[in-house]
Amino acid sequence: MGLLSPVTVGFDGASDPETSDLGDAGFLRALVAAEVALARAWAEVGVAPREAADAISEALGWQDDDPAASDVLGAADARRLAAASAAGGNPVIPLVGMLRARVPEHARPWLHRGATSQDILDSALMLTARRSGLSVLGSLVKTDEALLRFAAAHRDRVAAARTLTQHAVPTTVGLRAANWARGLERAAARLDDSLWELPAQLGGAGGTLASFVQIGGSRAAAELPAAFAEQLGLAVPAAPWHTVRWPVTELGDALVQVLDALGVVAADVAALGRTEIGELAEGTGGGSSAMPQKRNPVGSVLIRSAALRAPQLGATLHTAAALAVDERPDGAWHAEWPTLRELLRLALGAAGNAERLVAGLTVDTGAVARNLGLTGGLIVAERLALVLGPVIGAERVRRIVAEAGAGGDLGELLDAEPRLAEAGFGRAEIDELLDPANYAGLAGELVDDLTRSPIPEDTQ
Amino acid sequence: MGLLSPVTVGFDGASDPETSDLGDAGFLRALVAAEVALARAWAEVGVAPREAADAISEALGWQDDDPAASDVLGAADARRLAAASAAGGNPVIPLVGMLRARVPEHARPWLHRGATSQDILDSALMLTARRSGLSVLGSLVKTDEALLRFAAAHRDRVAAARTLTQHAVPTTVGLRAANWARGLERAAARLDDSLWELPAQLGGAGGTLASFVQIGGSRAAAELPAAFAEQLGLAVPAAPWHTVRWPVTELGDALVQVLDALGVVAADVAALGRTEIGELAEGTGGGSSAMPQKRNPVGSVLIRSAALRAPQLGATLHTAAALAVDERPDGAWHAEWPTLRELLRLALGAAGNAERLVAGLTVDTGAVARNLGLTGGLIVAERLALVLGPVIGAERVRRIVAEAGAGGDLGELLDAEPRLAEAGFGRAEIDELLDPANYAGLAGELVDDLTRSPIPEDTQ
Amino acid sequence: MGLLSPVTVGFDGASDPETSDLGDAGFLRALVAAEVALARAWAEVGVAPREAADAISEALGWQDDDPAASDVLGAADARRLAAASAAGGNPVIPLVGMLRARVPEHARPWLHRGATSQDILDSALMLTARRSGLSVLGSLVKTDEALLRFAAAHRDRVAAARTLTQHAVPTTVGLRAANWARGLERAAARLDDSLWELPAQLGGAGGTLASFVQIGGSRAAAELPAAFAEQLGLAVPAAPWHTVRWPVTELGDALVQVLDALGVVAADVAALGRTEIGELAEGTGGGSSAMPQKRNPVGSVLIRSAALRAPQLGATLHTAAALAVDERPDGAWHAEWPTLRELLRLALGAAGNAERLVAGLTVDTGAVARNLGLTGGLIVAERLALVLGPVIGAERVRRIVAEAGAGGDLGELLDAEPRLAEAGFGRAEIDELLDPANYAGLAGELVDDLTRSPIPEDTQ
Amino acid sequence: MGLLSPVTVGFDGASDPETSDLGDAGFLRALVAAEVALARAWAEVGVAPREAADAISEALGWQDDDPAASDVLGAADARRLAAASAAGGNPVIPLVGMLRARVPEHARPWLHRGATSQDILDSALMLTARRSGLSVLGSLVKTDEALLRFAAAHRDRVAAARTLTQHAVPTTVGLRAANWARGLERAAARLDDSLWELPAQLGGAGGTLASFVQIGGSRAAAELPAAFAEQLGLAVPAAPWHTVRWPVTELGDALVQVLDALGVVAADVAALGRTEIGELAEGTGGGSSAMPQKRNPVGSVLIRSAALRAPQLGATLHTAAALAVDERPDGAWHAEWPTLRELLRLALGAAGNAERLVAGLTVDTGAVARNLGLTGGLIVAERLALVLGPVIGAERVRRIVAEAGAGGDLGELLDAEPRLAEAGFGRAEIDELLDPANYAGLAGELVDDLTRSPIPEDTQ
Repeated sequence: MGLLSPVTVGFDGASDPETSDLGDAGFLRALVAAEVALARAWAEVGVAPREAADAISEALGWQDDDPAASDVLGAADARRLAAASAAGGNPVIPLVGMLRARVPEHARPWLHRGATSQDILDSALMLTARRSGLSVLGSLVKTDEALLRFAAAHRDRVAAARTLTQHAVPTTVGLRAANWARGLERAAARLDDSLWELPAQLGGAGGTLASFVQIGGSRAAAELPAAFAEQLGLAVPAAPWHTVRWPVTELGDALVQVLDALGVVAADVAALGRTEIGELAEGTGGGSSAMPQKRNPVGSVLIRSAALRAPQLGATLHTAAALAVDERPDGAWHAEWPTLRELLRLALGAAGNAERLVAGLTVDTGAVARNLGLTGGLIVAERLALVLGPVIGAERVRRIVAEAGAGGDLGELLDAEPRLAEAGFGRAEIDELLDPANYAGLAGELVDDLTRSPIPEDTQ
Repeated sequence: MGLLSPVTVGFDGASDPETSDLGDAGFLRALVAAEVALARAWAEVGVAPREAADAISEALGWQDDDPAASDVLGAADARRLAAASAAGGNPVIPLVGMLRARVPEHARPWLHRGATSQDILDSALMLTARRSGLSVLGSLVKTDEALLRFAAAHRDRVAAARTLTQHAVPTTVGLRAANWARGLERAAARLDDSLWELPAQLGGAGGTLASFVQIGGSRAAAELPAAFAEQLGLAVPAAPWHTVRWPVTELGDALVQVLDALGVVAADVAALGRTEIGELAEGTGGGSSAMPQKRNPVGSVLIRSAALRAPQLGATLHTAAALAVDERPDGAWHAEWPTLRELLRLALGAAGNAERLVAGLTVDTGAVARNLGLTGGLIVAERLALVLGPVIGAERVRRIVAEAGAGGDLGELLDAEPRLAEAGFGRAEIDELLDPANYAGLAGELVDDLTRSPIPEDTQ
Repeated sequence: MGLLSPVTVGFDGASDPETSDLGDAGFLRALVAAEVALARAWAEVGVAPREAADAISEALGWQDDDPAASDVLGAADARRLAAASAAGGNPVIPLVGMLRARVPEHARPWLHRGATSQDILDSALMLTARRSGLSVLGSLVKTDEALLRFAAAHRDRVAAARTLTQHAVPTTVGLRAANWARGLERAAARLDDSLWELPAQLGGAGGTLASFVQIGGSRAAAELPAAFAEQLGLAVPAAPWHTVRWPVTELGDALVQVLDALGVVAADVAALGRTEIGELAEGTGGGSSAMPQKRNPVGSVLIRSAALRAPQLGATLHTAAALAVDERPDGAWHAEWPTLRELLRLALGAAGNAERLVAGLTVDTGAVARNLGLTGGLIVAERLALVLGPVIGAERVRRIVAEAGAGGDLGELLDAEPRLAEAGFGRAEIDELLDPANYAGLAGELVDDLTRSPIPEDTQ
Repeated sequence: MGLLSPVTVGFDGASDPETSDLGDAGFLRALVAAEVALARAWAEVGVAPREAADAISEALGWQDDDPAASDVLGAADARRLAAASAAGGNPVIPLVGMLRARVPEHARPWLHRGATSQDILDSALMLTARRSGLSVLGSLVKTDEALLRFAAAHRDRVAAARTLTQHAVPTTVGLRAANWARGLERAAARLDDSLWELPAQLGGAGGTLASFVQIGGSRAAAELPAAFAEQLGLAVPAAPWHTVRWPVTELGDALVQVLDALGVVAADVAALGRTEIGELAEGTGGGSSAMPQKRNPVGSVLIRSAALRAPQLGATLHTAAALAVDERPDGAWHAEWPTLRELLRLALGAAGNAERLVAGLTVDTGAVARNLGLTGGLIVAERLALVLGPVIGAERVRRIVAEAGAGGDLGELLDAEPRLAEAGFGRAEIDELLDPANYAGLAGELVDDLTRSPIPEDTQ
């Protein structure tokens, strides 16, 4: 469905319905994985015969090193299941029938054994989320590394800081990039935390594991969720979470936070790449169907389109979580699935775009310098107030600033101020005062702090 | 992408990526239609040679009776275009190249002549919205008709009205259905209004129509948008609306309102179909993978899943509209496309589910009566206060009600009240007072009002 | 609560908790008005004694020309009621007690007669919405008039049109303002429609009007809602709308649309007022605590802060509407009240800010011209392709554009092109071609269309 | 503003504009605290004279044990500041003037020294959030403790589990409460984490700390943020976060998660307290203005009203974070303030309501048992399939279940099944099979797991 969602296109196959983890065929692989993992878990806890689990594994294409790699069902099956899912409200019911036919008879009782649809669907959702989330994380780490290099390279490139759209004081190109990286690293850390906590779901029809107890006894039933989670590489659930939906909302929040952080990069690149500003440019500008000269900041535009959509998707996950009534809610659960998937798609696509954008990001140092000088020195007006206020009075400084704002030459105005000369402010001292490079504060140190403590190894 | 969105499955092919208007291949047909319509409009205003327009029409599969019926490009082309769209940020740029190759050389100059990507994409979005919106409307009209029949059939079936989950006073099954219909009719009328106002987009690169003036002169350029709109069956735009996005948000609001109205039906059916309440049941209950006895209210559940998602999608459209900066915004426009499409999909699917749900909806009259009696007559406590308060005092009525609430027999308590007998309230009068059917107010008239004034012909 | 919501400050007292319609004391006036109106309606339909209605009117400060002008209860009462409202979940229950004490004994039975809390609260909400909505509309009309004057004044001021942040083709300052006005007029019309349709609520405990029938008989009960609505100046409800919540969501949608339209104005003013662009400036710039030279676009910033918040508030109203289960829902209704009030506050504040902003908006014509020339003529590259492509070939035009983009002088490059001279393009023709003013298309006409058909009288 | 937001009333004074931390006067205290803390920090790092800091502390009512306890400015000042804030877009600019007048002249230079409005406003927001967040946490801990007691007390009370509104299998009242507690504890832990990380803000006009360097030199400037944070009891910021807004969104997400968890409790209490179900009741039911017999689940209703509003407020914070362009954004920042405050208010009010609700929650054990038996034993249909399927075949079990569903007596039907008797299933075995208490799985263990590992001490 990438035709109307170009931000998701071209990254990890996110938009390819045939192959992507986030397409129907991909999600079907995760559903099959959950069904196989359950049979294997039954064998692990000593209840199912090993041969049954092996037969199911083989028949359904299980691969030890990649639970979601089964290719026994494909895009056409996914379409068939989707069509069949409307009757019961979820695709697991028809899926079980479809799988049963592929499994040797002796093993069939161990397929979907004791499980409820939600066990399979939630676990598949977490498995899919984990895989896609790790891809997002991979892009973020590369983007962050590139940003740290960029920040270091432009550590001392003084530029205008803008507040409420207006030039305020100097900053540096490097500090701006370091701030992007800070937001990104925080979001990546939170996503990373979230991914490791994504639990398997196994509770049976009402979240009591009664069916599992009936089949295998209390001890085996108590061990089963951990065995099941281990097969899928997911976290062991503390308890069934049929109506305790933090695994969905916390992941959702982390993904939205990723998109927030990427959105800030994109907002700045788009703003600073405006024709009149021209400080930053994406390496490869997008063309236009009508205007051959244009180089559109397509990466930024696409990332922004995702960042504008993500918060509302996150809100839907929370609304669903708050309405998780009974032991399985009457609509709220179903609202989560496509919403979480779309959020994963947006994060994956935006992170991929960001990786490409940051890798190619260029600085027009001439434009940076030209803009910095645009206000004729008023960019250090705050400094003048601090330094000269005590000498000639705040009111006098304000008046000089106002005259300069009206077109006067700030250096000359200051030079002509008799009391300044008396106080030892000659032209050289005035020029030093007016040099934006001398009023960048701790910008360099703030870059250094960050580039010295990069994103921890274990999240890479 | 129906595997995780079962509400969209099975209605008008909404989920079939190969055929649905709301899949990529379907949207591609609308894009092609917009390109052909532009060539035809150029001919209509006397600028393009008729043969060029005819050649383009023929080469690109135009059908006079259905602009979006072209089958020259299919699902594989849609995937190719999606992949190519990331570079420029939208699929129109690569599309033009793809189409050009299929058009005879003499006609090529008239393909995409003077247009900008947004002209084509917005117009295709409106065309798609119009077609899908009419399907939604068709389902709503049928659902409404069924509701009116249902309301008439159960006009006098007295039932408990519930406020804040508690039995309050009597109402009727018919009035409840009439209220559903009122919400539905209002939403349908608003959607209908919105669909007729969906405008074609034609403004050129900056919304000034300068390219069209250059190509055909001012008069032709001024006539072109209307001719273009007519080809597509869309409303004539008052002006280019590149950054004036009410056509998108008003449609979005109307679709969300449709889902609100359907959501109320689903909320009531789900609540009143609870095992303990059992007043309503969907004709065909969904099965369960674990519990063969269950008849899940799947239609309601799916409709609710859509109604919970829709408001946030509508909000995204508004956020995008409010950020429509410059002559084409830097991300907000791109956020609209997949959001509006998903909203159309939800409305189409929920309306289809509702049509099926209402057609099969059954009332368990025994349960209705049993529930009505659950509070032992206290459901008319308000009436007792109104009628008996002036006779024996409000405080005394409250005390009797409290005693009945604690387990006493309300009829006997009243019968034993000496001052009531004195005032002429014998057992017969008391039984009349306690009969919920005598305290349904204007419920019947409110049903009649509605069923006498059905949804107007012209929206059907 | 204006300290953290400066956008709402200073317009129609919106933020003053003592006096504003949108503060607690103001809403209390509306609640009192609804209670009085009910007694008056009972008299109108011939059931209550006229003296009772008069006594209640007098005791509770009714004024014929302004239903919500009662001053018998003030801010302290509002705080007392708020505190008492938690127990029952709404302020009407304690309010009735508070009012009863102020009414002569003979009239007391006619206070709150037959009503349920929702009748009073919903009607008060509509009354408040109507009054505040009309204030919003008043600001919008003035803003629109100012925009039309602005558009007319700058009808032919050619400026750069920007798409995806980059200069695209020429447009005019006037057309941009006309587009703002189009969005505003559409939103104003929709708000206007919505305000006239806001209905009174009168249905009794379960929406059947049973209590009213019991008290006054069927005929009087059927007439009562219209009489009640007339007293309050609200629309007559077709039926009780306890769970049919379009009056709330349609108003909400209209208010969000107003904020969208204002948001676009603010987005453009903020962007075009950037230090480097400088085409537009607010009449009165906001100061800075640290930088005396800054003139912040405070109006735009505040309007944007409101426009970013509004869509989510609108979504909450829809979520509540979709969850309107039973005859009064278990939380959804309560979620509407503060949300609609906040939306009204934002619309009122943003409209007031916009009125002030547009009245003082200034154009720096030097900056407009300077920016227009920034790309050295490439702003008409599309025109060159259209005009010169057929003469020297599209590929050759692209190459010249590319050379100019790399720093060449476009006029000289074209002048040096031998085939152009052969085709009659001398320097004069080339200069004509390169003049942006000659490539503004129908910009002027689009302004004229609008300024000739201003906002209709009856919405003013 | 509690009249329309009763959920916020009565808890920690949240709604009292005169006293609450979350009212304007309360926020003003936090602003004053931030200004004083800055002067004190200047002294701490050895730059300001200790006397200046002391004089400011004394003049502005600083209290060492409670930074936000100043009472030098009150509600009327807050209103004055609010009115003045519209001009500059935030209240800090006029606040500084107001405070300066109260400070001895010698100390005045150290007031707001080097700071920008955002430093003060963000820090005050974090201070307010910290204080209110701790109150929320206090309520959550008490609610959790009560839930754990409730879960332990009802550990073995077997009840119907419901999925998609229908009876599914048995569960226990205790497990349901344990699930509520799990959600609550997770949310509380996340809120707790978030509160300890809330950083002070100190970056100066452009986030470079240049003014602080100018005033006190690099070393002092580098130490100043930590000293400032310590005065306020906030976390030390790694860097200025003017446009890196995770402190706001992470807190927002945690608050929404709290409301999700509380919403689930409320959803279940409301559903299970329906007149027909009657398993749970709030200790104190809300009255009705019309129906004296009603006991409305007011606590649940109010909590739900908050839970329905919260997700959209959280989304607004994310939208703002994603749009944090430049060194201070043009509207996004301003959108955060009232949104975060409202979210705090909702969390505080909902947590207070939940504390009260859970403390008074009662179980009607008769209703629990009656409902459990409603399906005549079919609640263990899954068990029959598991146990008897292998004996008499799945198809035969399904048929018996169907007959029982149509009105047959399940026990008798099974007793009459010849092959069961042959297999040793006598009436006693059948009764054992049909007893829901024997099919509650690990419900008891899941309660024990939780009640053995309560919420950690350090979050209490």
